[in-house]
Amino acid sequence: MINVTQTYLPPIEEYRSFLQRAWDAKWLTNRGQLVKELEEKLIAYLGVDNLTLTTNGTLPLQIAIKAMELKGEIITTPFSYVATTSSIVWENCKPVFVDIHPDYLTIDETLIEAAITNDTSAILATHVFGNPCNVEVIEQIARKHNLKVIYDAAHCFGVNYKGKSIFDYGDVSTCSFHATKIFHTGEGGCWITNNKELHHKIYYHHNFGHKNQEEFLGLGTNAKMSELQAAMGLAVFGHLDEIFKGRKEVVGFYDEYLKDSPVRKLKIRENTEWNYHYYPVIFETEEELLKVKEILNSQQIFPRRYFYPSLNTLPYLKEQKCEISESISKRILCLPLYVGLDKRIVENISKTISNG
Amino acid sequence: MINVTQTYLPPIEEYRSFLQRAWDAKWLTNRGQLVKELEEKLIAYLGVDNLTLTTNGTLPLQIAIKAMELKGEIITTPFSYVATTSSIVWENCKPVFVDIHPDYLTIDETLIEAAITNDTSAILATHVFGNPCNVEVIEQIARKHNLKVIYDAAHCFGVNYKGKSIFDYGDVSTCSFHATKIFHTGEGGCWITNNKELHHKIYYHHNFGHKNQEEFLGLGTNAKMSELQAAMGLAVFGHLDEIFKGRKEVVGFYDEYLKDSPVRKLKIRENTEWNYHYYPVIFETEEELLKVKEILNSQQIFPRRYFYPSLNTLPYLKEQKCEISESISKRILCLPLYVGLDKRIVENISKTISNG
Repeated sequence: MINVTQTYLPPIEEYRSFLQRAWDAKWLTNRGQLVKELEEKLIAYLGVDNLTLTTNGTLPLQIAIKAMELKGEIITTPFSYVATTSSIVWENCKPVFVDIHPDYLTIDETLIEAAITNDTSAILATHVFGNPCNVEVIEQIARKHNLKVIYDAAHCFGVNYKGKSIFDYGDVSTCSFHATKIFHTGEGGCWITNNKELHHKIYYHHNFGHKNQEEFLGLGTNAKMSELQAAMGLAVFGHLDEIFKGRKEVVGFYDEYLKDSPVRKLKIRENTEWNYHYYPVIFETEEELLKVKEILNSQQIFPRRYFYPSLNTLPYLKEQKCEISESISKRILCLPLYVGLDKRIVENISKTISNG
Repeated sequence: MINVTQTYLPPIEEYRSFLQRAWDAKWLTNRGQLVKELEEKLIAYLGVDNLTLTTNGTLPLQIAIKAMELKGEIITTPFSYVATTSSIVWENCKPVFVDIHPDYLTIDETLIEAAITNDTSAILATHVFGNPCNVEVIEQIARKHNLKVIYDAAHCFGVNYKGKSIFDYGDVSTCSFHATKIFHTGEGGCWITNNKELHHKIYYHHNFGHKNQEEFLGLGTNAKMSELQAAMGLAVFGHLDEIFKGRKEVVGFYDEYLKDSPVRKLKIRENTEWNYHYYPVIFETEEELLKVKEILNSQQIFPRRYFYPSLNTLPYLKEQKCEISESISKRILCLPLYVGLDKRIVENISKTISNG
């Protein structure tokens, strides 16, 4: 069976050897040595100021909204994983959807200003499949209207834009280290911000508001990463070169086999060092997509309709129209992409698509 | 150094051998085989209807409040870990504190009705240190006033009341499987409910609202437990007899050495099979507590002021008075208690307390 992703697993002995340190210390969570070491490694690797690991990639989004005391409307993209919208709704704000750019698939920055009202408190945008938003224009708009900017950068590990980490843009970025991600900790995530005060506030929010065992700075929840997760991160970290190389290779195969195919591909924004995280293809029609998907499924190959559905159509929201996102959501398919995926399978998938 | 708790660690090879199955399946989260197996084992062991594992013990509290659509005021106890109150506040409800019983340390059920207003939607009470609340009276009150009942049963693994699991009382119970708990998964937790409809709702809330990959039933967040955590649970599960026996033994030592001490102990409710989770002692005055704590700390022994502070005094809340809880919070100390704690250390701690 070929799934859209396959978790990268380091040798289990490497995992065990990191974990042995937690066993020796008899310490499995609450800011253990492995969590701290992984944070230091990631900060150095990514070249960012402040990064804290979390138990998954969704809670830092919710916590960031809480920490910035966002109220009312948050302008967001309909083309993302559901967590982007659900975090807004969970935290009692209203998502206001702005349609996406048809080539970059990120929020269409030219439409943002028209969506701003007196109730708008922030922009929460997603760097789609690791493809950066137009961060400069979004920053200008946010400054002009005094809005906060959060980037859901779940797909962005290793992405650089204009020579620095994409995580370095916006008031805060969040990332996912879910098992299906390039760099992962089984479940996991983090937030990154270059605002020290905001970092401090998100930090205590993520650990019950503790100042110390007996004093509290404010409200909190539990979003702590455990040593079990951090050990996985440390083990995977040692293989990053191999992971990026392996993904780039598979992307190269697809590019080669699909070069004459009628399907459309993601347009990567200029000045981006991309991370080869997903291989989405956009069909002319949903019927074509469904036909190809059915053929592949019958061969035990499972690409994924992703992102689908367009988030403005979620059943718990009042309808807002986003024509481009709705249209693309119905026609986009993410192809299997992971380290070690056989070239012949890529060839077979590509032929099925081309002959659709 | 002797801490108030020490994580029970199964042999690392046992953990590794459960984890090998996740490696073989190349599957680390999203309802993997280890999570499912652990849920089945816990359901059978505890004799409960529905139990779902979560990434920690706090999120099921927040999710339960969301799932029952609680609004307005929630009557709760000031004597608990901060998560009990913070979950109410995080979910935009108002905690209304009812003072505790001076012996049982659980919410004083005789004071609950006086605190009910038209805005009250639920009672969220804690079985303190595994000591059950007066669940019968709370149930009567809840029925009479049409209120929901949530039990924060974080400390209650293995506690039975009137012949059945304490988790079986209330609309929903939540438990913590934090590293310091009797049964643990590093970080972790669960909810238990015998209401199938509510279980279904909490279930989809804990996994983004997914019905399947492409359809959503409603709002959600991410509270999924990973295979890394479940493997720990499965490894610890095999040692439960040893864990309960080891704790009971240490409790026996304290009981013996402290039998003539002036400190007061927790009164366990009648008809309870208790789980030996904590050994709290209540001093006559805070000064005595601080003196003993200082002596023990100087010997590298770290009992914990727990629960402290009384939650009605949290800095982000408007003041509400709870005299008994505030008084006991200042005078209660949880003594070191874990499997394998040396009898001579228990003797030494007990003598320090008795000679205060």
